[in-house]
Amino acid sequence: VGPEAGADDRGDERIRRRNARSHRAILDTTTELLAEVGYGQLTIEGVAARAGVGKATVYRWWASKGALVIEAMSQQPTVPFDTDTGNLRADLLAAVRRMIDVLTDSPEGTVLPELTADLVRDPRLADQFRAQFLRPRRSAIEKVIQKAVERGELSPDVDIRLVLDASAGAVFYRYVVTGEPVTEDLATKLVSLLLDGTGSTREPPQPAAGQVRP
Amino acid sequence: VGPEAGADDRGDERIRRRNARSHRAILDTTTELLAEVGYGQLTIEGVAARAGVGKATVYRWWASKGALVIEAMSQQPTVPFDTDTGNLRADLLAAVRRMIDVLTDSPEGTVLPELTADLVRDPRLADQFRAQFLRPRRSAIEKVIQKAVERGELSPDVDIRLVLDASAGAVFYRYVVTGEPVTEDLATKLVSLLLDGTGSTREPPQPAAGQVRP
Repeated sequence: VGPEAGADDRGDERIRRRNARSHRAILDTTTELLAEVGYGQLTIEGVAARAGVGKATVYRWWASKGALVIEAMSQQPTVPFDTDTGNLRADLLAAVRRMIDVLTDSPEGTVLPELTADLVRDPRLADQFRAQFLRPRRSAIEKVIQKAVERGELSPDVDIRLVLDASAGAVFYRYVVTGEPVTEDLATKLVSLLLDGTGSTREPPQPAAGQVRP
Repeated sequence: VGPEAGADDRGDERIRRRNARSHRAILDTTTELLAEVGYGQLTIEGVAARAGVGKATVYRWWASKGALVIEAMSQQPTVPFDTDTGNLRADLLAAVRRMIDVLTDSPEGTVLPELTADLVRDPRLADQFRAQFLRPRRSAIEKVIQKAVERGELSPDVDIRLVLDASAGAVFYRYVVTGEPVTEDLATKLVSLLLDGTGSTREPPQPAAGQVRP
């Protein structure tokens, strides 16, 4: 290894640092522009111009506007979901409140209804969204619900993902589709519905076997 | 009333008929173009050109592309929801299956994830969507669930809209956001979850008062 190789190393290092700076600048600019103009109006050209890079530089790392936006929103710092009261009802209520806050009052929540068309149309983009954005956020909640199974508060047969899809789905559907109110009252009633059901199928009380005198 | 007024009447009638033909042609063309290019690529210009009218004619009746598309999709003939088995579980299962079919396999279902951004951004458009498209479709299902209350299968306190939002929401959220499977199995499990709950809060069996010997 001679001095020539050493010079190459220093050159590589300069390129590597410049790349890292550009990469960071593009993501930060995307976050800024999302807040300013929204997903619909954001363009790769606009991001490149403000970040001081060429369009080709953006496309070297991201295949589409959707891919860039999903990486930018995935990197937003979020308060981790660390509720773990040891009581399923309280934990699920905290989870639903968190879903309401994110959807109605966060930059990522604003982007979500704008992304849905692209997610349905582009399965690769949907995979990226689920791996980078959705799964890390859901797994914290899944773990807390899983603990309720371990404590015996929930049957091991419970489909935790279905419970979470029905929770987040009711909130999302109200917010974007039906326009019914998305409030604290929704959180309480939704958790009751999912844990207790509508109570419709309760059979009239039967004498328990052990209590019937022979 | 002389012959002159009669001539005017005939003129008005001609204009009225021509307007009705243009109105119908614009809506039919919108439905065709939605199927061919989707909501994202559909333009008022494209509709006007194919329908053989000017852009101004389209804008005379519809304020935006969204308003035009919502009216066109609302007029699509749909098989009415006429399931009424007299059993809540069977009726709700039929309703969830219908939601799955519409979302995953109908022209209106294809448009829905593409509309969400516009619905959140434009409250007037959202009102139009709810009045023209959503309410007529939901009310048929609401009536069937209401009958379960009247039969005593459901408590009068049950929030029927919340049950429907959680049903449709879970289906919609899976389809567009989490990508979990939207299948017959989902319909069955979702109805069980909403009617029976997770079973988490069932207290250990207590002896019923009448069975305790004094």
